[in-house]
Order: sequence, then C-alpha cells, then structure tokens
Amino acid sequence: MTMHNALVFDAYGTLFDVHSVLARCEAFWPGRGAQLSQLWRAKQLEYTWQRSLMGRYAPFSRVTEDALLYCCESLGLKIGEKEKQALMEEYRKLALYPDVAPAMKKLQAVKRAILTNGSPDMIDPLVAQSGLSFDAVLSVDEMKIYKPAPQIYQLAVDRLKTPKENIGFVSSNCWDAMGAKSFGFGVYWINRGGAPVDRLGFTPDKIVKSLGEILL
Amino acid sequence: MTMHNALVFDAYGTLFDVHSVLARCEAFWPGRGAQLSQLWRAKQLEYTWQRSLMGRYAPFSRVTEDALLYCCESLGLKIGEKEKQALMEEYRKLALYPDVAPAMKKLQAVKRAILTNGSPDMIDPLVAQSGLSFDAVLSVDEMKIYKPAPQIYQLAVDRLKTPKENIGFVSSNCWDAMGAKSFGFGVYWINRGGAPVDRLGFTPDKIVKSLGEILL
Repeated sequence: MTMHNALVFDAYGTLFDVHSVLARCEAFWPGRGAQLSQLWRAKQLEYTWQRSLMGRYAPFSRVTEDALLYCCESLGLKIGEKEKQALMEEYRKLALYPDVAPAMKKLQAVKRAILTNGSPDMIDPLVAQSGLSFDAVLSVDEMKIYKPAPQIYQLAVDRLKTPKENIGFVSSNCWDAMGAKSFGFGVYWINRGGAPVDRLGFTPDKIVKSLGEILL
Repeated sequence: MTMHNALVFDAYGTLFDVHSVLARCEAFWPGRGAQLSQLWRAKQLEYTWQRSLMGRYAPFSRVTEDALLYCCESLGLKIGEKEKQALMEEYRKLALYPDVAPAMKKLQAVKRAILTNGSPDMIDPLVAQSGLSFDAVLSVDEMKIYKPAPQIYQLAVDRLKTPKENIGFVSSNCWDAMGAKSFGFGVYWINRGGAPVDRLGFTPDKIVKSLGEILL
C-alpha cells in the first residue's frame, strides 16, 4: 500500500465497539443481551441501506432507535421509555476497541478524520468522551444518504482537500471497506473476528487484525 | 383499500419459498441446512442493497452465488462446483407457497405482473415451471439497481400502463412493501410468519396472512 497523506476512519464497529451495549441489554433482559445486540446492529444497517435506496433518509439516531424497537418487538422483549433512553445513551458512550488508543498515538503524522453514518447528535458526544482527536469528524448526515454511496466517500476528499489516491480508508465493516475501494481509496480492512471477505467485486488493499498493524 | 386495476407481485419470499432450498442444503451439510438457508437469504439481500448504493449492480444470479460462497466460507462448510451448481439450480425451481396457486385463480379479473430482483436467467425458468401466468414479468435487471429504489416500482407503472394509484403491490418482504408504499402504490404485506412491521416511516395499507385474503 502506498504512503497516505490522510487516514479516514469508520467509527461504529471500527473505533467503537457497538456491542459494548451488550452488558446493558443483558441487565434489562437477562440471557437475551447478545441476541438483542447482534440483531439490533444488523437491523440498524439494513434500515440505512433501505432508506437510502427509498430516498427516505432519516438521521442515524432515528434509525438506531427504530431498529431497537423493531428488534425488541421481534424478540418479544418489553421495552419502555426508560430502557430505550438508557440504551440510546449507551450508544453515545460506546467503548473504544483496546487497540485504538495506542494505534492513534502512532498515527499523528498524517491528517486523520472520521467518516461515519452517525448523525452529529450521536457521534459528537461519542468522540468527545473518547479522548481521541481528529482533524475532521464527517457525517453522512450532510449528504442525506448512507454508506456505501460514493458521494459519502467524496465528502472526505472535499473536506480534507486531499486527492482520493492519497487517502487511506480504515473500516472493520467489510462492505464499507469495499465501498471505499470502489470509490478509489486505498483500503485497510480491520478483520478482528476472522470473517471472510465480502464478495462485492473488490478486495481490500490490506487486511489487518488490529489498528496497530497500520503503518505509515 | 381501493379497487385496483392491476396487482404487482414480488416473487422471492412472496410467491416462491426461498427456504425451499433448505432440504438440499441439509442433504449436503446435515444439521446445518436451516442456518445456511437463512444466512444465504440475508446475505443475498445485503449484497443487493450494498451494490445498489455503490453503483455496482450485478445480476441477481451473480449476487446469489456470491452470497452462497460467502456463507459457506463463514460457516466453515466446504462447497465445490457440484454443490454450488445444484443449489443455484434449486433457486430456479423454488416451491410456490401453498396459498399461491388457489389465490391466483381468484385474481384473474385484473392485470397481474411480477416485479422482481431476479435476473431473467433465474426468474424466467422459475415462472415457467410454476404453472402460473402473468401479463408481465418485470426484472430490476432492466434498471441495474435493486429494490427498494423508486425507479423499480416505476417500471411496473410504465409497463402496465396503469397509474400508480390503481396498482396494488403485494410482498412478503416488509421493506419491499414499504418501498412500494413510499413510491405510491397501495400495499398488501403478506405476513405469513407474524413478524413486526418494519419501522421505515410507512405502514402497509393491509396486512394479510396469506394471498387468499386479497380481495378484488
């Protein structure tokens, strides 16, 4: 992979562990936390793709809450205002993966940005409490369409004023990595869990197991 | 729901049972058939949405095969050319749901069309062997983008020469029903399994448990 002048990071699932809501889910519904957490994440993503194709964008906070309510109904879990508010609040303080903070310290020599599905009401508090700093935190909310639409990746080019050939994109979501590759970024896929590569017509430039393996 | 001059049916999951491939999956990988069948369907749909947003359409036959290979790798199931060909062939002879043929006999008074994600190489043999007849079999393949993009539903308006207000759309896939409702069709959601309504900002005009409940 060539040297990059800028690194652009996905947030949810890449820097922040979306399944760190699991403990709170488990506390509300003992024995069902893992199932709810997984289904919630899957449905949240489905809704982003479906709404984007319908031309009916809604902010990620809305989509995330809608997905939660759907999943609870689907699993037969009773959810009230208290549980809903608590779980949505958890999403604003997700844990960083353990490899993130040490790796970020080593990557200070280049411009660093977040490019996320998260709407500002979700991502801004999350980044603020993380202790990390970025040159830009860019949200799909500006474009009213979700990843992996190419105009989302273009947003990073425009705002970092860096040609796409010089941008390295980092995501744990393989479909997001493929979208970025299709757009023209150099792509690191963080494959923490040993999943297969998604068959979407592209391959990541580099597959790594943790953020620490990204070298400038 | 108002009277309709035309009914437009989704194919996979609505008329044809996509999980009728389960028995063949089970024969190849005993004890894993249900899991593979479910994951295969989920991945197949994900790929349609992701490719559509990336602007990288590929025909449903390709997407279906890619999803199968991904799922087998993900589940640790060894798949060779023989198994792959056999499973893809199963997709061209999926079973009709038991309520479909009797209901179709009662719905002869209006124009009837299929509007499907299926590419002609998959849907044409499937319809041919079903014993059903339609005024039109329309595929997203003409538009090179998948449901629920609005231009797909427009295809039915154009080809049936019927205003959207007079078209009733029938799908078991709730997100497809919502896409059609967002576009402007009257919508029947066939909810055979008692699932919750997807939270995508719309509600079906009518929720029925089988095709037989659709009245002209």
